[in-house]
Amino acid sequence: MFTGLSAFPLTPMTEKSIDEPAFLEIVSRLHRAGVDSIGALGSTGSYAYLAGDQRKRVTELAVQAAEGTPVLVGIGALRTADVLRHAEDAQNAGASAVLLAPVSYQPLTEDEVYGLYADVTAELSVPLCVYDNPGTTRFTFSDELHGRITALPNVGSVKIPATPADPQEARTRVQKLRQQIPKNVTIGVSGDAAGAGGLLAGCEAWYSVLGGLWPELCLEITRTAQRGDTAEAHRLSERLTPIWELFGRYGSLRVVAAIAEHMGLIGSPNLPRPLLEFSGTDRAQVDEAVRRVLADTDEVAS
Amino acid sequence: MFTGLSAFPLTPMTEKSIDEPAFLEIVSRLHRAGVDSIGALGSTGSYAYLAGDQRKRVTELAVQAAEGTPVLVGIGALRTADVLRHAEDAQNAGASAVLLAPVSYQPLTEDEVYGLYADVTAELSVPLCVYDNPGTTRFTFSDELHGRITALPNVGSVKIPATPADPQEARTRVQKLRQQIPKNVTIGVSGDAAGAGGLLAGCEAWYSVLGGLWPELCLEITRTAQRGDTAEAHRLSERLTPIWELFGRYGSLRVVAAIAEHMGLIGSPNLPRPLLEFSGTDRAQVDEAVRRVLADTDEVAS
Repeated sequence: MFTGLSAFPLTPMTEKSIDEPAFLEIVSRLHRAGVDSIGALGSTGSYAYLAGDQRKRVTELAVQAAEGTPVLVGIGALRTADVLRHAEDAQNAGASAVLLAPVSYQPLTEDEVYGLYADVTAELSVPLCVYDNPGTTRFTFSDELHGRITALPNVGSVKIPATPADPQEARTRVQKLRQQIPKNVTIGVSGDAAGAGGLLAGCEAWYSVLGGLWPELCLEITRTAQRGDTAEAHRLSERLTPIWELFGRYGSLRVVAAIAEHMGLIGSPNLPRPLLEFSGTDRAQVDEAVRRVLADTDEVAS
Repeated sequence: MFTGLSAFPLTPMTEKSIDEPAFLEIVSRLHRAGVDSIGALGSTGSYAYLAGDQRKRVTELAVQAAEGTPVLVGIGALRTADVLRHAEDAQNAGASAVLLAPVSYQPLTEDEVYGLYADVTAELSVPLCVYDNPGTTRFTFSDELHGRITALPNVGSVKIPATPADPQEARTRVQKLRQQIPKNVTIGVSGDAAGAGGLLAGCEAWYSVLGGLWPELCLEITRTAQRGDTAEAHRLSERLTPIWELFGRYGSLRVVAAIAEHMGLIGSPNLPRPLLEFSGTDRAQVDEAVRRVLADTDEVAS
């Protein structure tokens, strides 16, 4: 469940609602490409911006289009009571696992975050992935806290931020966390530029934003890293450097939305306001980066 | 409307709902003390954790208990569509003004924040206070952005984070912002330890967390600063140093909730989960700080 390539699709928005046909096609492409799992309603899936009934609908659509590929579903919310409700809805809609970040308004303490995971895991009938994403939650996990949380029942994986670019530092990072958590809990890397490096450093999964849009390229990187071909995995990842640079500059959500629009997969507007799609020179930079990557691959046309 | 002491009351929570009698009494105390305005559903009022119908109910209760004292109401949410709905509800429930922070999950750009305020102010029939609170929103306003936003219609005030402790630096800070914004838009300081200093540095308002619980003490500081008695205003504020230290260490919400519980104004639990009330040594430190302040004042018994 929590190994290999977990692809995180966009949830394309219209002014009032969700573009359901576009979402079904995006998820269906992931299933057809053969990704190991699908992370619906991750940060890229804008879970934080959707009401409970919308999340339930998105989960149903994702499970339908995934045709048996396991679907992880983001259940994060500011209040524990809402998280529990989203978890119940996700399970009823067929999610194979749930993904929980400690979403915050008031900055949270370690004990509060532990309490959140304790309250939620006690109610689950599917496994949970701990979503460590300080860029959006502004909460920084200590490895000791990861240890306490992964000792709770039903925890199956930890999704960590980007591992260091240096291979030895990446291995040290993963080994240090590995010492704190049970053997049956996998570690998955996110921050797509670190996907290849994280897998080579010992992560069992890559929780990937670009994998939600370009699954074949990301699967090629994943399989190459999984068989230990270090040089080739890095070469494949480095082909995507123009995209990783944009992710670093603008955050990944706006960039993948622009690429999806460029590919004709989604219309515009497609982000929840106040988030804005690119325009002007920003838009031109994305188009240029996609053109540069296109010179090396034909996935965009797939 | 946006001058003097604006007192921000707690919204005490029960397991499932809001403790309405306790909230009515907390607001009524502010009206009886004679505060200049009441900031319901600020960060201290846990607006971010409440659903639309709960916010509407809290606004109705606040307006009722305020008995004519103007009530500002927090309308922030992750999605612009929800902010607009909260604004409509607040106005219908009798709010005299609204308070809007750029709540974020995906970090926001300056253009996105400007767009949010443009969309919302275009729909308002009451004035708006810009809520600049990087500790919870993680968005940092530039003065230039404050200038663009305060040029929009219906903007009446900017609530800024704590001014510097040094009096000259505080004056420089307020003057710099003042140069960017229209004369009819007031500047209000928050970060309660900076209340006296901010008012003395030229802020027209103090948006105060402790004012929502100890209005008489905070009014005394406000009136003293307003008449320019620098030494006495600082002396009064410094009496509360044990409280300001706790605010700095734990954030103000958990501390005022513990003080309100200590005073018998609210029960326990009183915070929205996953937030936790103090226990053990943390609780003992709050009780000790309140005792130290009590040696100088009898407001806690009021």
